[in-house]
Amino acid sequence: MSTIENRQFKLIARPKGMVKRSDFEFASAPAGEPGPGEVLVQVLYLSLDPAMRGWMNEGKSYIAPVGLGEVMRAGGVGRVVGSRDPGLAVGDFVVGMTGVQDYAVMKAKDASKVDPRLAPLPRYLGALGMPGLTAYFGLLDIGQPKESETVVVSAAAGAVGAVVGQIAKIKGCRVVGIAGGPEKCRYVTDELGFDAAIDYKNQDVRAGLLQFCPQGIDVYFDNVGGEILDIALSLLARKARVIICGAISQYNSMESLQGPRYYLSLLVNHARMEGFVVFDYLARYGEGMQALVGWTMQGKLKAREHVVKGLETFPQTLLMLFRGANAGKLVIQVADE
Amino acid sequence: MSTIENRQFKLIARPKGMVKRSDFEFASAPAGEPGPGEVLVQVLYLSLDPAMRGWMNEGKSYIAPVGLGEVMRAGGVGRVVGSRDPGLAVGDFVVGMTGVQDYAVMKAKDASKVDPRLAPLPRYLGALGMPGLTAYFGLLDIGQPKESETVVVSAAAGAVGAVVGQIAKIKGCRVVGIAGGPEKCRYVTDELGFDAAIDYKNQDVRAGLLQFCPQGIDVYFDNVGGEILDIALSLLARKARVIICGAISQYNSMESLQGPRYYLSLLVNHARMEGFVVFDYLARYGEGMQALVGWTMQGKLKAREHVVKGLETFPQTLLMLFRGANAGKLVIQVADE
Repeated sequence: MSTIENRQFKLIARPKGMVKRSDFEFASAPAGEPGPGEVLVQVLYLSLDPAMRGWMNEGKSYIAPVGLGEVMRAGGVGRVVGSRDPGLAVGDFVVGMTGVQDYAVMKAKDASKVDPRLAPLPRYLGALGMPGLTAYFGLLDIGQPKESETVVVSAAAGAVGAVVGQIAKIKGCRVVGIAGGPEKCRYVTDELGFDAAIDYKNQDVRAGLLQFCPQGIDVYFDNVGGEILDIALSLLARKARVIICGAISQYNSMESLQGPRYYLSLLVNHARMEGFVVFDYLARYGEGMQALVGWTMQGKLKAREHVVKGLETFPQTLLMLFRGANAGKLVIQVADE
Repeated sequence: MSTIENRQFKLIARPKGMVKRSDFEFASAPAGEPGPGEVLVQVLYLSLDPAMRGWMNEGKSYIAPVGLGEVMRAGGVGRVVGSRDPGLAVGDFVVGMTGVQDYAVMKAKDASKVDPRLAPLPRYLGALGMPGLTAYFGLLDIGQPKESETVVVSAAAGAVGAVVGQIAKIKGCRVVGIAGGPEKCRYVTDELGFDAAIDYKNQDVRAGLLQFCPQGIDVYFDNVGGEILDIALSLLARKARVIICGAISQYNSMESLQGPRYYLSLLVNHARMEGFVVFDYLARYGEGMQALVGWTMQGKLKAREHVVKGLETFPQTLLMLFRGANAGKLVIQVADE
């Protein structure tokens, strides 16, 4: 019988508007034992993602909502501390949906081995994880950027946006990022090599896009929705592609969600707006990871992680995403490596 | 010198909201004389289209706005009454952008000959004209319907919608129309062969779509925008295609235009929303006309025109479109055949 203590955040109420501490219960239970084909994973880092807000809502979506009383869903990287599967050994590092807890019993087939010598472990939750794959498939498969086209990405310093812009540069595009604050703007231009950045908190986004996209926007990768999506739609080039990846400005106010008022720009410009979630590309994750790791090794794909220590900080750390308070991929460090 | 009197509607003010009589001047001038390569056309029928409302607005679009003081732009069918081009003879019937007037001097290359033995002349402004081509390219090129998929079209009894639904039936789809009033609904089901129709003036559109599209909507062809677009978005099937062809509910209130609140349905369903205007397909008009005429000859493509007599009725007849008061393609008969 396991005597390892396992702290867990369980969802106990469906949030109305912004997530609150009282939507969760934080309690301990003994860590489970792996059955045949299973492993016990000690969680080292947890991924905090805007999509988590959607998983807390009732109702049909691309994935079932987290049930009330269940451990909150989250991706994580951890160390195998017990194994009843020949494919994974104690001491291996894996990534998977561990949930917001110290220890997770997982099916071995749902835990992917990762190599800590190729990249720091938290990167497998960011540029080399779901956000990186999201950027890869969304930009290349839906956006189909061509050399010398103008690509605009919102939340440009975020986990997805930073990878979108760098892949667009690799493909020979002009890249304009939209981010909040001068520090994030400097990061995407000076460190990541974007051609320009617009600080939506201190600058006029429309004026900036007019300046940096004199021929209009060929590809717009949207992570935010709301007013910035409207402005981008109003400045599309002919045959533009708009990728709907997220809408972080709207996730805490779905009842009064603002639709894109300039959607008729699609009509006059023969443009296309298409949405996706990364799980749609499950069968091609291998291809995506190969490309992302390759670019990382060549120094063409940079990333940074914003690490907050302590599982107990989960509810307030999650809120940093919606304030844009994180610099890079937001993760919680649950235990020392 | 011509002494033929030519009555003309000129745009003299940019309408605010709904079009008013006072936005136009109705006056006479002598009909012009055709120069080399030109023809003089007596207009017999004029096409009234929702798109006309957009042409009256200032600002960049897919086509230049009608200038103040210029004859209002319109498609028309007419008889050649003077020709200085070897390709067209007096007595030929042609279709082209004649403008809202009795007589038009046109370049012969901008006037396409039509055959009055194949179909009644007004049909070349409807099912065998721009609306028919709009339906053809929008549905087939953008919508790409596959056999047994569910296709929904709004303004289903209108000039475009009626052709969309019939082509979808030809392609083996289940077709649901949305139209205003029981008469239009009976028309699309009983005369045009749609599988079902929903009367948005008297029925709950959402309940109707849930009933008739139990697997969700695979292709939604939108002519109306506003609330009906919202409802359709909320009921998309996976990998659905939404064709943005028009937004007649919004054209007279562009300043307060309502964006599609359910656009995140594109994200969760990996769906696509794409706009177009028929002029994008200029190079393929021949292909489209061949198909439309062929289906008409085979009795698979039916149409009806709503004919109002008298050029002088133009401003008030145009308003019928926005009230949905027309049954079939709305045309003005300017002169007897």
